[in-house]
Amino acid sequence: MAAPAPSVILVRPQLSENIGTTARAMMNCALGDLRLVAPRQDWLSAKAVASASGAEALLEAARTFASTEEAIADLRRVYATTGRNRFMVKPVMTPRAAAAELRGHARAGLPTGILFGPERTGLENDDVALADAVIMAPLNPRFSSLNLAQSVLVVAYEWFQAADPAIPPASMTKGAAPPATKEALLGFFDHLERELDGCGFFRVAEKRPGMVRNIRNMFERADLTMQEVRTLHGIVHELVTARRKKEGG
Amino acid sequence: MAAPAPSVILVRPQLSENIGTTARAMMNCALGDLRLVAPRQDWLSAKAVASASGAEALLEAARTFASTEEAIADLRRVYATTGRNRFMVKPVMTPRAAAAELRGHARAGLPTGILFGPERTGLENDDVALADAVIMAPLNPRFSSLNLAQSVLVVAYEWFQAADPAIPPASMTKGAAPPATKEALLGFFDHLERELDGCGFFRVAEKRPGMVRNIRNMFERADLTMQEVRTLHGIVHELVTARRKKEGG
Repeated sequence: MAAPAPSVILVRPQLSENIGTTARAMMNCALGDLRLVAPRQDWLSAKAVASASGAEALLEAARTFASTEEAIADLRRVYATTGRNRFMVKPVMTPRAAAAELRGHARAGLPTGILFGPERTGLENDDVALADAVIMAPLNPRFSSLNLAQSVLVVAYEWFQAADPAIPPASMTKGAAPPATKEALLGFFDHLERELDGCGFFRVAEKRPGMVRNIRNMFERADLTMQEVRTLHGIVHELVTARRKKEGG
Repeated sequence: MAAPAPSVILVRPQLSENIGTTARAMMNCALGDLRLVAPRQDWLSAKAVASASGAEALLEAARTFASTEEAIADLRRVYATTGRNRFMVKPVMTPRAAAAELRGHARAGLPTGILFGPERTGLENDDVALADAVIMAPLNPRFSSLNLAQSVLVVAYEWFQAADPAIPPASMTKGAAPPATKEALLGFFDHLERELDGCGFFRVAEKRPGMVRNIRNMFERADLTMQEVRTLHGIVHELVTARRKKEGG
């Protein structure tokens, strides 16, 4: 209640499948309110529902409006997305900067919305003029036009990433399995080095310490689990036991 | 030359229009090298070209491969994108953190690639096992599945945003020595697995694929140099050859 997520407002969208893909991108990023200004096609068509790919609840809940003015009437802050500079006297910001602002507005309890234009032409200047600020994504200057749902995704994705406390730690290495004890790792080193001595791997005695260090280093870096250390024991054991068996027999 | 952008590798993509939309998203973010592993449909079909929407040069230049192994052979660092936790012992990072690393690798002149799985199922665990790290985008946990081109866009977008020269180089493990090529690493896997087959290590046939994956995964994580791969070849060779010599003599 106190922190509404931004509304996504598609202005005169042309293709129903793009509305569906937009709904999917919104739901991916925990956005829920979809508004349509004069859509050309049925946003509940089979194509749209198929593109939504599980997010059709957003299509069903979508509201339509005859004009952009009506669609934004209840909002307190509106951002207009555009692929080219409109040279209006208006702040122009990246999706990332806009996402930080949108989070701030949400914390302040202000309802916000983001305008996206029709596929072929983008927003008209009259629509852009209604916004408080313009969002332009930094992209390849020679090929900067995103399709509609891709554009929604970029902004929605930045919104979701800006939820700082919710973002999981960047490197949650190794899920559940804890690293092996050093004792277990050293036990494997002993085993491997004994066998390498046995088969004559360390031919030059002076080089042995350096080689041992390098080999240990490789396995240290692999950050092995207990199970993996057991697997490595098994590998060395099998390679060597097969030999011994044949030698003995 | 000195700063190659990451290759985008679509593994067994199902629909040609998704290849086209991928090409568009890549060009939006100044990525140029598209690789296709066993695509089901023609990536130069009318649908694909229409979806590329001006980026068809990338489709024309795309290279196809029979396997993921072949597609990554010349790369030095490979990232696997996934929508769900695979619980492999491998670093898991956000697209943003991965982008910073990829920029660091590019500055160091290392060719990199990012794997994306088939639309319906995502990457198989065998493909994920080939990667150095996993990329998972923080998204709505109750609806986190992106479509293929959206997934490419998120990673490519973060790559482009990370162009800021202020970003420090990725932590280069291991001082000067660059990582081994994937081709060299795969060559070692072949060697090791052949010998393990030979000595009966894989007793239960059904368990072999999972065991192979786990073993590859350990060595992937060790972030081996070319010299270290040679050392490992030597270790396996010596453990086994000593046996053969005695058998032969």
